[in-house]
Amino acid sequence: MSLQNEMNGAESLVRTLLKSGVDTCFANPGTSEMHFVGALDRIPGMHCVLGLQENVVTGMADGYYRIAGKPACTLLHCGPGLANGMANLHNARRARAGIVNIVGDQATYHRPLDAPLTADTEGMARTVSHWVRTCSNAGDVGRDAAAAVQAASALSGQIATLILPADSSWNTGGVVAEPLSVPPPPPVDPHAVTTAARILHSQKNVLILIADQATLAPSQHLAWRVAEATGADLMGSYTNGHLQRGRGRIPLPRVPYVVDAAVAALDKYEHIILVNAEPPVGFFAYPNRPSALYRPDSQFHVLSRPDQDSEAALQALVDEIGAPETAIPDPGPLPDAGTGAPTPEGLAQTLAALMPEGAIISNESISFGGYLEHFTYAAPAHDWLNLGGGAIGDGLPVATGAAVASRGERRVISLQADGSAMYSLQSLWTQAREQLPCTTILLNNRRYNILIGEYANVGAEPGPTAMGMLDLSRPDLDWVKMANGMGVEAARATTLEQCADLMRQSFNQAGPFLIDLII
Amino acid sequence: MSLQNEMNGAESLVRTLLKSGVDTCFANPGTSEMHFVGALDRIPGMHCVLGLQENVVTGMADGYYRIAGKPACTLLHCGPGLANGMANLHNARRARAGIVNIVGDQATYHRPLDAPLTADTEGMARTVSHWVRTCSNAGDVGRDAAAAVQAASALSGQIATLILPADSSWNTGGVVAEPLSVPPPPPVDPHAVTTAARILHSQKNVLILIADQATLAPSQHLAWRVAEATGADLMGSYTNGHLQRGRGRIPLPRVPYVVDAAVAALDKYEHIILVNAEPPVGFFAYPNRPSALYRPDSQFHVLSRPDQDSEAALQALVDEIGAPETAIPDPGPLPDAGTGAPTPEGLAQTLAALMPEGAIISNESISFGGYLEHFTYAAPAHDWLNLGGGAIGDGLPVATGAAVASRGERRVISLQADGSAMYSLQSLWTQAREQLPCTTILLNNRRYNILIGEYANVGAEPGPTAMGMLDLSRPDLDWVKMANGMGVEAARATTLEQCADLMRQSFNQAGPFLIDLII
Repeated sequence: MSLQNEMNGAESLVRTLLKSGVDTCFANPGTSEMHFVGALDRIPGMHCVLGLQENVVTGMADGYYRIAGKPACTLLHCGPGLANGMANLHNARRARAGIVNIVGDQATYHRPLDAPLTADTEGMARTVSHWVRTCSNAGDVGRDAAAAVQAASALSGQIATLILPADSSWNTGGVVAEPLSVPPPPPVDPHAVTTAARILHSQKNVLILIADQATLAPSQHLAWRVAEATGADLMGSYTNGHLQRGRGRIPLPRVPYVVDAAVAALDKYEHIILVNAEPPVGFFAYPNRPSALYRPDSQFHVLSRPDQDSEAALQALVDEIGAPETAIPDPGPLPDAGTGAPTPEGLAQTLAALMPEGAIISNESISFGGYLEHFTYAAPAHDWLNLGGGAIGDGLPVATGAAVASRGERRVISLQADGSAMYSLQSLWTQAREQLPCTTILLNNRRYNILIGEYANVGAEPGPTAMGMLDLSRPDLDWVKMANGMGVEAARATTLEQCADLMRQSFNQAGPFLIDLII
Repeated sequence: MSLQNEMNGAESLVRTLLKSGVDTCFANPGTSEMHFVGALDRIPGMHCVLGLQENVVTGMADGYYRIAGKPACTLLHCGPGLANGMANLHNARRARAGIVNIVGDQATYHRPLDAPLTADTEGMARTVSHWVRTCSNAGDVGRDAAAAVQAASALSGQIATLILPADSSWNTGGVVAEPLSVPPPPPVDPHAVTTAARILHSQKNVLILIADQATLAPSQHLAWRVAEATGADLMGSYTNGHLQRGRGRIPLPRVPYVVDAAVAALDKYEHIILVNAEPPVGFFAYPNRPSALYRPDSQFHVLSRPDQDSEAALQALVDEIGAPETAIPDPGPLPDAGTGAPTPEGLAQTLAALMPEGAIISNESISFGGYLEHFTYAAPAHDWLNLGGGAIGDGLPVATGAAVASRGERRVISLQADGSAMYSLQSLWTQAREQLPCTTILLNNRRYNILIGEYANVGAEPGPTAMGMLDLSRPDLDWVKMANGMGVEAARATTLEQCADLMRQSFNQAGPFLIDLII
């Protein structure tokens, strides 16, 4: 037997992942993953980050991708461990993040015995993954891992889930696979480019709606040139997972969350050019309100689909219409930090005034923060990460993973509602363990405020039973104590001045900090 | 239109659930459930309990069933909300608990638009449910709800998931349905009874293995009579979700978790009579160890399957062999409370000495507590709830739901490992809000200790990378602060005397308490 064939499946997995450029593993292992853990221990090069619940693990991998621009892997334990992480895989899928999930499972010959932890792991994986494979042979693990990285690394990132029965890990015969090249995205359709150019030249009420990669700096600058040259408006999808914003980037409004506001914002557009975006629809239907947010007579023109290269498409459009180079307008001076009682405007001004250059904002502010972004155009250049799939609980894990991706060199600021923070508060412990530069501004209103708003649509004031399911007081959550309990320094603020002081203090120290901002 | 037809779907749902005997709702609602919340607000009779993450919600419903003996409903938000609760639905399924999940979802006509929260809700539900139905018409909601309660209420409880598009809730035309009677379980096979009697009479090394309902008081007493009359041994499955134990109940060993210990315990039995139990297999396979825990030449004799009535089967067997009435042996005097540094034995003695009559123990003690039950045979009569499906994180939610089921009249004591507690620590807040008599003994060893043991099976001491995924220190979790942050009084103990003092204090007060026991 050759030396290579004495390698076990787990070792071939680690070596293949590293060779394919995956060098970060967010993990919460169990018994069936011990051989993988053993291989990680013996083979240097993989940065392993522990999360204390799997939705933290998968959310960190999402945040990592958005900043690193390449997939990390997760390590999850059997079907139920995967299930715990599925909500943030849903969010990652909507944010078009690439993730390689490694899910350990029962040994192939043990599975038919239906042991207690045995579950429909493949069935679970399929509900949130673009790519699923169960590897039943140690000799195939390397090949399958390379294919998983390839799938996750598509231009529009994908969720690739590799299920690894324990005997595929521990058996020998592992073979390290060469990285597989990622197929190029489907080419831009020249007809789509000429059609978009014709509409922009001939029509008045035209919106260019951009999403995903199209909102990152290279594409957004091209879109700006097109808009400036033609008089069209520019807008971003509400759910864009990743925006590049601030000084030197374009002032890009998002389609509003609230249906009436969105309908009003889109009412003037007879033509909408989609750049990696999809026709905007409401998060939910409501009685007697439209499902679609655009005019019924709107005409859509697809310049590029979500799986295509937005930069190539926009460059072709710039060339087609001969749009000249245009400077991004100066957003004016930095605002002064806000004062007095916390308001969305005041907090946004404080954030703009104080955030360091190159900050990363993880925004899961829900009801308080829907419009925080309007007041931060003049802030230093920053990355702004939104909840892509609407499943609350991704804000803190995404912040944590983004901090891992930036190797502690960029300040990560969470705008984090309290109700959604409770979904994945275990993230704070990982921030403390890894000593990540994460500042959490915990927007503490002691209620599911967005649902109290939604309840009004039912047509009544909530009574005691309803409020029992919508408010988070009785008892109040003490975020200072909870953060301290997980090793994160924390303090309470009730005014914007106090909040600003704590932000300055936090930005000057290396590790995490939580500001319990009573709103 | 008749009055009844002005009722909306949500109202018909609440009224049907109440009429069918479901009067407790564990909830974490979202926008698509607001009409159900509204109906709960207007129609009295449903006790609604909020959980701050869905795995808390589903775990509470599991604990509720085990003590109440009937299903509660859950209220979950869309596919990702269901996904968050799936691990504890897996555990509930393994514990044979009955639960009616109400999962709100996109309106029927909104779903094709693929809004951000749209997911494969049915696909997710199928992986953990016995019964799944999507109700696409307000007029069918009552009928489908009655069928869901019927499915959940089978003798061996089932997971029934009713997916409710928002327009089925808000549209009028709702019809309240009559409760559906639960079909009787498959009858006991007389041939199985005579076969078991023959084996018991003719063979020497016979084990009667009992599981699930067979471990509750009525069945276990019958099993004891059979064993006493025939000289057979009695054992319970490792994963039994619910045991009735203590004074007046039989001393029932469980099949051990560790493979070698289990193989040794089962080695003498050539014949195993299964009473609602399945042939015992390991949680996991290991290289060079058997998957099955019984002798390869063991012969199994099924007296009753898991879906059959164990009491009827055992009564028939008692009658067949003419087993006389036999007193349960006196377990001897109560032990004294333990002293000094915490050990499993000392903690078990302390527990036995101090627990009040009728206590409920929720055991998710993992590595520390595997054998705690050996030292509690002389305790007052109590219910002992185990993790049925092996997906960690059910201990605190099950304790909380059990306390709700006993309407605050019984003391619930959690033996709770720290690693698994972090999975669903939000349960503590619900204990505080509902002022439940829950005492958590938090077994704080600051590591995934069971995995450090499992790692040894890989054949090496864990190095720094492996330990980075197996230990929970750096920073230590401060459970007193975290509990306080969620409104639960708490204190630390480092000796069994301190632990006993805090237990006495807690048992004398109404609400929850957490003892951070450093082990």
